[in-house]
Amino acid sequence: MAAAVVANGASGDSSKAAFAEIYSRLKEEMLEDPAFEFTDESLQWIDRMLDYNVLGGKCNRGISVIDSFKMLKGTDVLNKEETFLACTLGWCIEWLQAYFLVLDDIMDNSQTRRGQPCWFRVPQVGLIAVNDGIILRNHISRILQRHFKGKPYYVDLIDLFNEVEFKTASGQLLDLITTHEGEKDLTKYNLTVHRRIVQYKTAYYSFYLPVACALLLSGENLDNFGDVKNILVEMGTYFQVQDDYLDCYGDPEFIGKIGTDIEDYKCSWLVVQALERADENQKHILFENYGKPDPECVAKVKDLYKELNLEAVFHEYERESYNKLIADIEAHPNKAVQNVLKSFLHKIYKRQK
Amino acid sequence: MAAAVVANGASGDSSKAAFAEIYSRLKEEMLEDPAFEFTDESLQWIDRMLDYNVLGGKCNRGISVIDSFKMLKGTDVLNKEETFLACTLGWCIEWLQAYFLVLDDIMDNSQTRRGQPCWFRVPQVGLIAVNDGIILRNHISRILQRHFKGKPYYVDLIDLFNEVEFKTASGQLLDLITTHEGEKDLTKYNLTVHRRIVQYKTAYYSFYLPVACALLLSGENLDNFGDVKNILVEMGTYFQVQDDYLDCYGDPEFIGKIGTDIEDYKCSWLVVQALERADENQKHILFENYGKPDPECVAKVKDLYKELNLEAVFHEYERESYNKLIADIEAHPNKAVQNVLKSFLHKIYKRQK
Repeated sequence: MAAAVVANGASGDSSKAAFAEIYSRLKEEMLEDPAFEFTDESLQWIDRMLDYNVLGGKCNRGISVIDSFKMLKGTDVLNKEETFLACTLGWCIEWLQAYFLVLDDIMDNSQTRRGQPCWFRVPQVGLIAVNDGIILRNHISRILQRHFKGKPYYVDLIDLFNEVEFKTASGQLLDLITTHEGEKDLTKYNLTVHRRIVQYKTAYYSFYLPVACALLLSGENLDNFGDVKNILVEMGTYFQVQDDYLDCYGDPEFIGKIGTDIEDYKCSWLVVQALERADENQKHILFENYGKPDPECVAKVKDLYKELNLEAVFHEYERESYNKLIADIEAHPNKAVQNVLKSFLHKIYKRQK
Repeated sequence: MAAAVVANGASGDSSKAAFAEIYSRLKEEMLEDPAFEFTDESLQWIDRMLDYNVLGGKCNRGISVIDSFKMLKGTDVLNKEETFLACTLGWCIEWLQAYFLVLDDIMDNSQTRRGQPCWFRVPQVGLIAVNDGIILRNHISRILQRHFKGKPYYVDLIDLFNEVEFKTASGQLLDLITTHEGEKDLTKYNLTVHRRIVQYKTAYYSFYLPVACALLLSGENLDNFGDVKNILVEMGTYFQVQDDYLDCYGDPEFIGKIGTDIEDYKCSWLVVQALERADENQKHILFENYGKPDPECVAKVKDLYKELNLEAVFHEYERESYNKLIADIEAHPNKAVQNVLKSFLHKIYKRQK
């Protein structure tokens, strides 16, 4: 399961420009934070660390805060303060993502991220990256305090980021201890485990968090939007299943990387589906060949996927998920909320990358 | 600079018993947190991880919340709810400490902590410890939300922990980039840098945080206690200077470890004082011998410390710090606050371990 990136939508172009502008201001504020007496060296360090890790992504999560907020307000025009606050929350999500990625890359011993070496692999950085991850997380609290303290929803915003972070870290723990190197044990992989990892590790912060931010900005009480949370988490799960599917069946030219979930012993939706469907012989093939770098082993796994018709299983899952999501969305009483949810769904449905 | 531990006081014995009792309840709550669907494996992991990392310290920081709260209230008896809330905040500080130690040990590549292997060195743990550190931090937010949401000081409590964490992580960054292996450069070490590292990395969370928690519990507004903050940060700095002194001059039997600050190229108060006082020749000796494991190099550094009379310099510093702190404390208008501060000071003044 590669890190998921929410697909881009045309609607966000004006939002995108507004969004990009705010970054320098937020960074400047972090570098002038009176809560610490910076030295020149530490200023330069943080400056570079932020550019290296917060920038370079597609910012789809961040921008979707602005787009969602506009839809909830039923307008395409936000005033200056609204724009700033929505962009700021969007950047908080980008900072959160940077924090997760910096630490995940250390734990996964990864090589590259967003087309450059992982931060901890940069000379002179090394495990200082652990502390940099912490600082990224701390910046979110600093940003929220500076720009939202005094707003009626300040506590809800802090509780939201805390709860989503806790869910993500718990999902990451589950992923780490389930797919732990050294004791490769496919019997631990099943649909329930896969679902739980994906839901907690990816869906909450990638899908629910941006919309929840937009709802708070709109003055809503999140307690009244439990159904919206469920739909978004469902959508995030569907998104990650696509990711797992594309890792094996996507066009490497198009998705920009060559999938290695099989070699990496990932708890992918595909292997979980294969395990569900395999007879004893086929299970044996999986146990013997999954998680090995040898191309012959990978080929055997892929042949088995073909034998089990997993492409068709995926397309059936995709169709069913879509229908279920649409039905759930249309059952929602609020038209503006429906628009937000449909916009998310249509950005990802049948995506090829 | 070894991790500092606040010295024990006789007054805390009844507090200590009350404090120990609360841990199991808080742990149970973390294991039953409805924000995540735990598997048996992840429950066992968290259970073990908490016992391994949160327990095993002296809990002086945590217990000092209860003692400070009692002094602020001017009573030795707290009711059941007050006791529970004070203990809970105390445990939050112990959780915070565990979070810092787990991650610091990874970054410092340390071997042991509190007489056992560092958590990341435990078989099957490894770099999952990074995520465990994050979970420890997240538990604090979970605990605060569960037990303090709705209290008038809930936001202040969250902001306090966030600000103290930010200061600590920033101090840790400064320490890491200043004392970075590979580019050993003593010219970077001076009193200002030493002071800044110590103040941010240790003093805020070890000295200011427990008292700030007690003040919030007492219904006080922290904005009115800027002077108390300054005094406690000063005291924390003095405490760390003692720690640096004892690393070289303390009785290993008594302090329970053999100091290695010289070998480890630590930005210790002693080396900083030596650099202040050294002539060109003596500086040369320091540059040649500091930060090397060879016992002959260590001996040369210690000889130089003797030549420069650093023991006497320390005792003079200790005397001056004490007098300054006492004067500042007695200038404080609130007698109960004076008691809290004096109690901290007398626990650490002229300590031998």
